[in-house]
Amino acid sequence: MTPTASSAVVLSPVTGTPRLVDPLAPHVGLEDQGLTRGDGVFETLHVLDGDPYKFDAHHARLCASARTSGLPAPSAQLCREALALGLDAAPPGSRDPFRDLGAEHSVKLSVSRGVPGGQPWAWLTVAPVPEQTFAARRGGVSVLLLERGHDPAEDSDLPWLLPGVKTLSYAVNMAAVRHARSHGAQDAIFTTSTDHRILEGATSSVVCARTAADAPPTLLTPEPSRGILPGTSQARIFDAARRHGWAVDYGPLYPQDLLTASAVWLTSSVRLAVPVTAVDGRPVPTDPALTRSLTDFLLGRDSA
Amino acid sequence: MTPTASSAVVLSPVTGTPRLVDPLAPHVGLEDQGLTRGDGVFETLHVLDGDPYKFDAHHARLCASARTSGLPAPSAQLCREALALGLDAAPPGSRDPFRDLGAEHSVKLSVSRGVPGGQPWAWLTVAPVPEQTFAARRGGVSVLLLERGHDPAEDSDLPWLLPGVKTLSYAVNMAAVRHARSHGAQDAIFTTSTDHRILEGATSSVVCARTAADAPPTLLTPEPSRGILPGTSQARIFDAARRHGWAVDYGPLYPQDLLTASAVWLTSSVRLAVPVTAVDGRPVPTDPALTRSLTDFLLGRDSA
Repeated sequence: MTPTASSAVVLSPVTGTPRLVDPLAPHVGLEDQGLTRGDGVFETLHVLDGDPYKFDAHHARLCASARTSGLPAPSAQLCREALALGLDAAPPGSRDPFRDLGAEHSVKLSVSRGVPGGQPWAWLTVAPVPEQTFAARRGGVSVLLLERGHDPAEDSDLPWLLPGVKTLSYAVNMAAVRHARSHGAQDAIFTTSTDHRILEGATSSVVCARTAADAPPTLLTPEPSRGILPGTSQARIFDAARRHGWAVDYGPLYPQDLLTASAVWLTSSVRLAVPVTAVDGRPVPTDPALTRSLTDFLLGRDSA
Repeated sequence: MTPTASSAVVLSPVTGTPRLVDPLAPHVGLEDQGLTRGDGVFETLHVLDGDPYKFDAHHARLCASARTSGLPAPSAQLCREALALGLDAAPPGSRDPFRDLGAEHSVKLSVSRGVPGGQPWAWLTVAPVPEQTFAARRGGVSVLLLERGHDPAEDSDLPWLLPGVKTLSYAVNMAAVRHARSHGAQDAIFTTSTDHRILEGATSSVVCARTAADAPPTLLTPEPSRGILPGTSQARIFDAARRHGWAVDYGPLYPQDLLTASAVWLTSSVRLAVPVTAVDGRPVPTDPALTRSLTDFLLGRDSA
């Protein structure tokens, strides 16, 4: 789902003045520890008509990731300046052909530890949201459940394991998506190996809904404190749902909970709320009206 | 322990002609998945007087890592060509002031998935072995035991978790070393969280020895099949030890086994056999004669 950048901005060091660069030119040395060790952190932001959604939540998570990793992060103001510079230089965003939300960009903001003995630095790339993201929002994705090999809750008190940190070391997440695709699905959801508890998507959070006649829906997600990445999209959806009087709940979810839900989504910043259409080949119902509500919640277009 | 490269060679794509490049110039784009996702694999080789040690073992492990990751790897011949090109362009290697083994270089060979939609590529950097490595060989290192959060043996049948793959996603390994250093030690050894079984060093294998009067030493290492990286140095040491009639054993090792051993080492390609002087602040005996034997085993300088 990685788009190709149409503009790029570098901050080197992370306190430096944002500098527009050619997104296709080489900028990184062969000994940069972001490259040689996956040693850095990142955030992906959704920009709609030039407005970065959940900017504060993303910047706060970037700072938390950096702090746990012993890295500096660019200030919110520098990030906003870099973002404005990158957006100014980028072609107009793309538009979802199924539901035009506005001109959409995907922005990736990253910090690398830099070369040994050098200084950490940051960069930002701006890209149009790709067609396949629009298709996933509309048509949903089939997922495979893949064991995570351990319960990440075990990591949560062990800072050297970088619990809850969105690091550049994403090789396993990417391998999980490749594995799912090579087995006929489109994405992956991690589970614990012992009791097959639902954890998170390879690059998303998992949210499901239960509906009943004459009652507001209930939204559920795995406990965010248990070693999984705290999803900024999931949090935003839950905040809005509460305002609308929906019930929200955190707790252990198992494969059976997904299969018996009224609807299941993978939520992430740029993809928004992508309906899950099948889990391990077994169909899962979708609910276009609910998907639309969750998308509105994410974009602040709900009226509550 | 990462040295600064004095020469560099790029193969792009991995089947391309090795091309000497400026090691300090930028070569990598901001969307390279080696950088943005830690999506790639690597090997570190020790070169002594121009001769790469354990080349076949490293190339085989690179190919295995690449295969599990769905990446191509450069052929052994291309790697040797790249290595020759890089060594030719590099200043003479450094010499260990405590025991002159010859002119030593550290070579890192890596493969990245490249930019989305592009081709994987490989690179190699050549650097002199740094002073701190020589100091560690001589003076040893104190280590902290750090929980790995799970038993990697649980991963070994789950290919999407990249078991046994030396990926560029090394952020946790680096965080473990930083954690150890910030707590007064110099390196880290991972243990399981449940039963505190010894696994591996953050960037090395763990080997210990038991000696008794009038008998050859016994070397021990954790079971290499149980989800930890198969150490090429540990394997080379054990092969030579067997030829010398030493006993070798694999099996569960616990902290107490390290504390009661005759000597403990961290073994890795460039550091060779580094004596462990303390575990969690408790002293561990060292045995300079055994360290010398293990080093000779590694360099093929034993006469058996």
